[in-house]
Amino acid sequence: MIRIALDGMGGDIGAKVNVLGAMKAVETFKDIEITIFGDETEIKQYLTNSERITVIHSGSVISMGEFDPIKAIRTQKDASLVMATKYVKDGFSDAIVSAGPTQAVVIAVHLIIKRMEGMHRVAIAPIVPSLDRKGKILLDVGANIELRSEHLLELAIYASVVAESFLNRKNPKVGLLNIGTEAGKGREVDKETFKLLSESKDVNFVGNIEPKELFTTDSDILITDGFTGNMILKTLEGTAKGMGLMLKEEIKSSIGGKIGYLFMRKNLKRFAKRLDASEIGGAMIFGINAPVIKAHGSSDAKAILNAIKQARTFVQADIINKVKDKIKDFNIEGESN
Amino acid sequence: MIRIALDGMGGDIGAKVNVLGAMKAVETFKDIEITIFGDETEIKQYLTNSERITVIHSGSVISMGEFDPIKAIRTQKDASLVMATKYVKDGFSDAIVSAGPTQAVVIAVHLIIKRMEGMHRVAIAPIVPSLDRKGKILLDVGANIELRSEHLLELAIYASVVAESFLNRKNPKVGLLNIGTEAGKGREVDKETFKLLSESKDVNFVGNIEPKELFTTDSDILITDGFTGNMILKTLEGTAKGMGLMLKEEIKSSIGGKIGYLFMRKNLKRFAKRLDASEIGGAMIFGINAPVIKAHGSSDAKAILNAIKQARTFVQADIINKVKDKIKDFNIEGESN
Repeated sequence: MIRIALDGMGGDIGAKVNVLGAMKAVETFKDIEITIFGDETEIKQYLTNSERITVIHSGSVISMGEFDPIKAIRTQKDASLVMATKYVKDGFSDAIVSAGPTQAVVIAVHLIIKRMEGMHRVAIAPIVPSLDRKGKILLDVGANIELRSEHLLELAIYASVVAESFLNRKNPKVGLLNIGTEAGKGREVDKETFKLLSESKDVNFVGNIEPKELFTTDSDILITDGFTGNMILKTLEGTAKGMGLMLKEEIKSSIGGKIGYLFMRKNLKRFAKRLDASEIGGAMIFGINAPVIKAHGSSDAKAILNAIKQARTFVQADIINKVKDKIKDFNIEGESN
Repeated sequence: MIRIALDGMGGDIGAKVNVLGAMKAVETFKDIEITIFGDETEIKQYLTNSERITVIHSGSVISMGEFDPIKAIRTQKDASLVMATKYVKDGFSDAIVSAGPTQAVVIAVHLIIKRMEGMHRVAIAPIVPSLDRKGKILLDVGANIELRSEHLLELAIYASVVAESFLNRKNPKVGLLNIGTEAGKGREVDKETFKLLSESKDVNFVGNIEPKELFTTDSDILITDGFTGNMILKTLEGTAKGMGLMLKEEIKSSIGGKIGYLFMRKNLKRFAKRLDASEIGGAMIFGINAPVIKAHGSSDAKAILNAIKQARTFVQADIINKVKDKIKDFNIEGESN
């Protein structure tokens, strides 16, 4: 049995989508059991089938607008996120899924479960859409403002194991996000990272990738520091939103557009789906001593189901141990292991 | 008369689009005269009307794939870009327009015309599309890998003058591109810049803007360092390209889509136009002692016309002197003026 701890109160919608997603997950996967943390009364309202689902009552929630997540995690011991994390730390579950606020999730797992051996930084790694429909891993999108080249190498190794075991890519390609394709482009850290990744036997480095190839590159992994990755992810979101609104405006602006829409409504829905985060699954938190899946704040039940599925695959593939094995001898000057 | 120097060989297509654009420009604006630099034989092939157009022969071209633009600018004294730049420096033209390689244009005007008094850095500032169709100024998209907060303040002042005089925005709003809206977000340089912009009386600072609001924010100016700005611009390009290809695929995937397309073809064309750089005009190079417009490499004649129009407005509005007046007393520790 694969045991998954679910933050039942995480996300903009709260208990309902988490409970519905969990029920769908145990129905789909016969090898998992889920422990849901949250308000027991609320959860039981939606829980119509509790086969392989246990509910543990928690007294509070880390709010989506929390401005001081470190303090919240330290003081709200009865929060659903904190209790679920502690449950994994204590060995009662194998992985955690939460649609709670990203920084709070990162801090909770970092403080409570802690980093895995040999790993010097954690990273937030969503799967972003690509033209070939396979998706690619983008990291770090915000766990660290800055990263040293050694950190980026470790994270690239982690991402390579994930791409191979989780996305089924053979010898997955790693690209360094940069302002130009030639070696020697970018900031000092980019030049150093280019060198380290080129020399590593543990990653299949294909060189610098400019974000204008974000959807079309054949790289499986796109890596950069957390500031840059966050700006890239948010630009992708902003452009998708802006273009979606422009497309709507133009279609609505004439009778021809409105008639055309009736014919291609399904096509446009499929188009929108290809950019929909809930279809792709949650972001993975790399570097923690357990699998952590952070589902999107706006997750519906299907997105929670997909996040639970991701957590299951992560455990099955034994990713944490595979990475540990590769990086156990890594030392970074001036940093403890 | 406003006198504009045009790099007649710049861009992927070369002389043809530059000459056609120039002829259209003198026809449209009776107050300009244009000097085109390039291969005289080639230019005269397309020049059917030379009213207020002078051609000066140049012996070489800085190629679009030039890997060492500094060396090229220093050695190819007879290149069209270099000669056009020198012409402005010597006072024979008021502004320069080139569709040549971006880094080569930045280096040419920087080395030959030089920075304006009081300005410590130059920046590349394109106008990016927005949902309200007004466009906004994005900078720096690549002239500097790193910028200090003082540089960003100077550039924000420059951009504010441009937004007011050129885009007709009253008291234009300046947003700092960042990973979160709260003060205190981002890297050290972002926090310092936030503080400097907040304190300045010369800019209407509205705080941090996340790039997920890129198309929808009401800021007129979005500012960041050249590495981050370049990544943002390229992510915008990559997402637009990826989404465009996905939309095409989905429309073509069924009969309904194809029929719908026939009805909304014009709507989809208008949609594509809203994201088209040639409709918006060239990128401005800020900080040089003359107006510099860098048209897109893939410019057609219309894009060149628009870039010439931009240069004309820039001269008319006397932007360089207006900025000089605001920043003349700026000193940056450890840097010469």
